[in-house]
Amino acid sequence: MEPFLSVFDSSPDGGRGLARDMPVRWALEEAGRPYQVRRLSFAALKEPEHLARQPFGQIPAYEEDGLVLFESGAIVLHVAEGCPTLLPTDRAARARAITWVFAAVNTVEPPVWDYDMAGFFDRGRPWQHERAAVLEAALRTRLGQLAQHLGDAEWLEGTFTAGDLMMICVLRRIEDAPLMADYPALAAYIRRGEARPAFQRAFAAQRALLDAKA
Amino acid sequence: MEPFLSVFDSSPDGGRGLARDMPVRWALEEAGRPYQVRRLSFAALKEPEHLARQPFGQIPAYEEDGLVLFESGAIVLHVAEGCPTLLPTDRAARARAITWVFAAVNTVEPPVWDYDMAGFFDRGRPWQHERAAVLEAALRTRLGQLAQHLGDAEWLEGTFTAGDLMMICVLRRIEDAPLMADYPALAAYIRRGEARPAFQRAFAAQRALLDAKA
Repeated sequence: MEPFLSVFDSSPDGGRGLARDMPVRWALEEAGRPYQVRRLSFAALKEPEHLARQPFGQIPAYEEDGLVLFESGAIVLHVAEGCPTLLPTDRAARARAITWVFAAVNTVEPPVWDYDMAGFFDRGRPWQHERAAVLEAALRTRLGQLAQHLGDAEWLEGTFTAGDLMMICVLRRIEDAPLMADYPALAAYIRRGEARPAFQRAFAAQRALLDAKA
Repeated sequence: MEPFLSVFDSSPDGGRGLARDMPVRWALEEAGRPYQVRRLSFAALKEPEHLARQPFGQIPAYEEDGLVLFESGAIVLHVAEGCPTLLPTDRAARARAITWVFAAVNTVEPPVWDYDMAGFFDRGRPWQHERAAVLEAALRTRLGQLAQHLGDAEWLEGTFTAGDLMMICVLRRIEDAPLMADYPALAAYIRRGEARPAFQRAFAAQRALLDAKA
């Protein structure tokens, strides 16, 4: 039976594919695994049926033969098992790929998210500009370190892994931000990820669902 | 050869064990694996030798037979491989445990961290009180959902796993916050974790190192 993925019924980002079903869709496409989607309204996220699958009322939730998982990072690792494109079989290379999945969600995502969200939540507040400067400095520190590690390489560990998939999904949130002009290697890295056929299929699938609704 | 763990040379939290070497130390103790530590000053974190191991200049870094890992979540999962206490051998139970590791670092930690850090960084700022209320509300949402999932259970998935280890390390940051009085099941959950002999050994080890320096 094909796994089920719970996704938003309408896009908070206008179809840019920034919601957290995107890394899971991409991983499923890299692994060549067909899946079905369960579309949820924002109201349905808070209903007992969904909370039984996803205790925090978020998307995605993932169902496969009675197993229910949540957290995009965990689902990506689950899908990646048995897919050497995403998770190398060599023990050390595998551990390094997993390291980058965590670096994406726990070290790079917080400053990316704070920077991006402040544009909405702080707009017009008296502290908007002062706080924006603090958040931009924190973000630039992480982007500089990431660019330094990447150097001239195509991917974080030589070959593409789940770590790149997750990192690129995190960075896409700010790919159009003016400050990205100062990190051309990261901008090119994002574009390399987006050029992968599996990414394009995943992106088109989330977009088609939203276009159908509109 | 015993693995090496890079840790702070002095504690930013006065020995409360909130730095990110703590989940790794705890996991190593649960797995019964001896380890050695490499003590780093704050200045040394930014030096090339450490950045070669940890591109973001953070602790912990982990070295084992030439393999270098970073990100506490990734190192905990690496240590957990082959330790059924931390990562069940059953495929579904294992995936659920990993789900909770990610829930700890990517869903629960951000509001815990924001709430805790605002007490330092926003102190005396014009936005301090307004922002504190927003952050507390966000944190209460997550704590309420986590308490709802935990219910009367001892651990998140029946038996203790790496997911509990990571979640308890995240929650310890606010265990003394007044709002925890409203979540007695979570307070008891933290205490159950802290009562484990492996936690106590890990806590004592980080504390002894700091006491020796002082």
